[in-house]
Amino acid sequence: MHADEFGFGTQIRKSPYFDATVRWGAKGFSVYNHMYIPRDFGDPEQNFWNLVNDAILCDVAVERQVEITGPDAAKFVQMLTPRDLSKMAVGQCKYVLITNAQGGILNDPILLRLAENHFWISLADSDILLWAQGVAVHSGLDVQICEPDVSPLQLQGPKSGEIMRALFGDGIMDLKYYWLREMDLDGIPLIVSRTGWSSELGYELYLRDGSKGDALWERIMAAGLEFGLKPGHTSSIRRIEGGMLSYHADADIHTNPFELGLDRLVDLEMEADFIGKAALKRIRDEGVKRLQVGLVIDADPLRGPNTTFWQINKAGADIGKVTSAVYSPRLERNIALAMVATEHAHLGMQVEVVLPSGPCVATVVERPFFDPKKALAAA
Amino acid sequence: MHADEFGFGTQIRKSPYFDATVRWGAKGFSVYNHMYIPRDFGDPEQNFWNLVNDAILCDVAVERQVEITGPDAAKFVQMLTPRDLSKMAVGQCKYVLITNAQGGILNDPILLRLAENHFWISLADSDILLWAQGVAVHSGLDVQICEPDVSPLQLQGPKSGEIMRALFGDGIMDLKYYWLREMDLDGIPLIVSRTGWSSELGYELYLRDGSKGDALWERIMAAGLEFGLKPGHTSSIRRIEGGMLSYHADADIHTNPFELGLDRLVDLEMEADFIGKAALKRIRDEGVKRLQVGLVIDADPLRGPNTTFWQINKAGADIGKVTSAVYSPRLERNIALAMVATEHAHLGMQVEVVLPSGPCVATVVERPFFDPKKALAAA
Repeated sequence: MHADEFGFGTQIRKSPYFDATVRWGAKGFSVYNHMYIPRDFGDPEQNFWNLVNDAILCDVAVERQVEITGPDAAKFVQMLTPRDLSKMAVGQCKYVLITNAQGGILNDPILLRLAENHFWISLADSDILLWAQGVAVHSGLDVQICEPDVSPLQLQGPKSGEIMRALFGDGIMDLKYYWLREMDLDGIPLIVSRTGWSSELGYELYLRDGSKGDALWERIMAAGLEFGLKPGHTSSIRRIEGGMLSYHADADIHTNPFELGLDRLVDLEMEADFIGKAALKRIRDEGVKRLQVGLVIDADPLRGPNTTFWQINKAGADIGKVTSAVYSPRLERNIALAMVATEHAHLGMQVEVVLPSGPCVATVVERPFFDPKKALAAA
Repeated sequence: MHADEFGFGTQIRKSPYFDATVRWGAKGFSVYNHMYIPRDFGDPEQNFWNLVNDAILCDVAVERQVEITGPDAAKFVQMLTPRDLSKMAVGQCKYVLITNAQGGILNDPILLRLAENHFWISLADSDILLWAQGVAVHSGLDVQICEPDVSPLQLQGPKSGEIMRALFGDGIMDLKYYWLREMDLDGIPLIVSRTGWSSELGYELYLRDGSKGDALWERIMAAGLEFGLKPGHTSSIRRIEGGMLSYHADADIHTNPFELGLDRLVDLEMEADFIGKAALKRIRDEGVKRLQVGLVIDADPLRGPNTTFWQINKAGADIGKVTSAVYSPRLERNIALAMVATEHAHLGMQVEVVLPSGPCVATVVERPFFDPKKALAAA
């Protein structure tokens, strides 16, 4: 493939790493936040093993940032999320949900606090830039909201720490899980954080100058060579093993935090009046009608992730849907995230999943499927 | 390709016509509003000739609708757009821009008025659902805003009128350009409008029940057989000939309506205080720094649309960028939409365009490149 010829016009943006990923073997791209994201470097199972045994470098420039600054920035950001941010320090990152007035989830980003009134919202796939600007219109708060020139890479896997040390020196080794630091790599301006979408030890490097994408990619690949670093892509296998959400698949505007068991991300008792608070109080009081569960599906190894939502039946009745399913070569079973009616969301419950090839038996199990305490990522 | 196996998980939605388009020969898909859209049925030039000589049926379910209802719906919708809606009748459609507080364009949808306080915004590629819900939060207006179960098809081309007559009878022939009608086709609930994205005679059929996508597609293809109807996709060639915008390519959040010459879509004198009014007044008074122009590029026929923004130079200085370029087999030249510094936006001006293969000479020309009065579409 010639990088120049790939694409349907300019309607979908290419990342600053696009040419580099093509050069390093990217064979297929998906689209996320109006940009191409490499999702295929050959064999997804090999990509998984590269991730869990060594390290991979992933172009996640599609994680667009919404930058919020101005005297009321902190107040405004708290308005956007049900998570209590009152103790969030400068230099800290937090996984948050963004909810609308009905308590529906609009995004599940990482929030970064760069300064007292300087935040980045590192997005999953929806235009929170428009949501935030829309909320600001009549808010009476003094904030500026824009999409800055920031393009993240993910360096993930057990060897990522050593590669970071090779790049930045010993000082980087004390960067704690879910903290960030402003760094400079041979004149390339970066924010570095101990975060990622793999449930492995990992870092994100937020490039602050899109013209230096190629240089940054090559610099990291060169430093990682001796540690077995491979170019890669976010791994559906590993993130489902880790029970991590993919927005639009496992959650959408009609999903509320309680259905996902994410009560820890909702503080209904805090004083701040975030958007969705009244609705979420009502939902909590009334109880949810469905819950996310883990499933093990008793079928031949799936050849890839499900591309439609598979219906789930119990005693002939439709009780829910499989949202994300994949074969884990490590666990040697088909694992899935699913949304089912509350009365069936019990460990050990057997249900029927309707695959394209026909119905199969599945069992409700604990999730995450692997390393449930996230000991690897938080190490 | 097996429809079941296509895709990267469930993160990107399939349209109600997805299986039908695969069955009818769709070979490649892009992503738009978080959904797959067929963009390849083989030869794009053949698709163009099918469109301009006969008719094509296109899956544009990606044109998601934002539905706005409630006692303040009309007032709220006017708040979203600089176009004066005070004379918009029930049953009418209007091409509008949605602008943010800075006057930047967030989308260029078709607005449909289904009832006094019942609107659909038929979207280009951005989450105006989030924008509208965000604006509503502190607006004090009584509106409901959701994405309804609506999935449009486009039936476009000179034979589309005859096919519509075959489907709906003589009554449909008096549907005027940019008007809509509620219809029922063998029990399939529809809104039908005389609109489209081709600059040809054309109709959009808004399916109001996603479970009937396959039936609707087959019904239309069967009726169109004798008129030469082909499955197809929105034609980059025809829309660039027609000077129609592709959002993110030719316009984005940093583009204002005046830069595109779309002054007719901005009414700064009306009483209503739409979002962006103050900023657009300032921009109008100060004058724009760049303008969209048409270009004819003197080079070998382009093999496809540009996939990056090509730099434009004049006397060695960077003066702008080509946003959309394509070879028109009818005009037998490379045509393009471009954004250039105002002082160079004069008909006949010669500039240098930097193609991947090297610099070429280009000339500023009138746009649209074909049928400038839209006589075909409005016939």
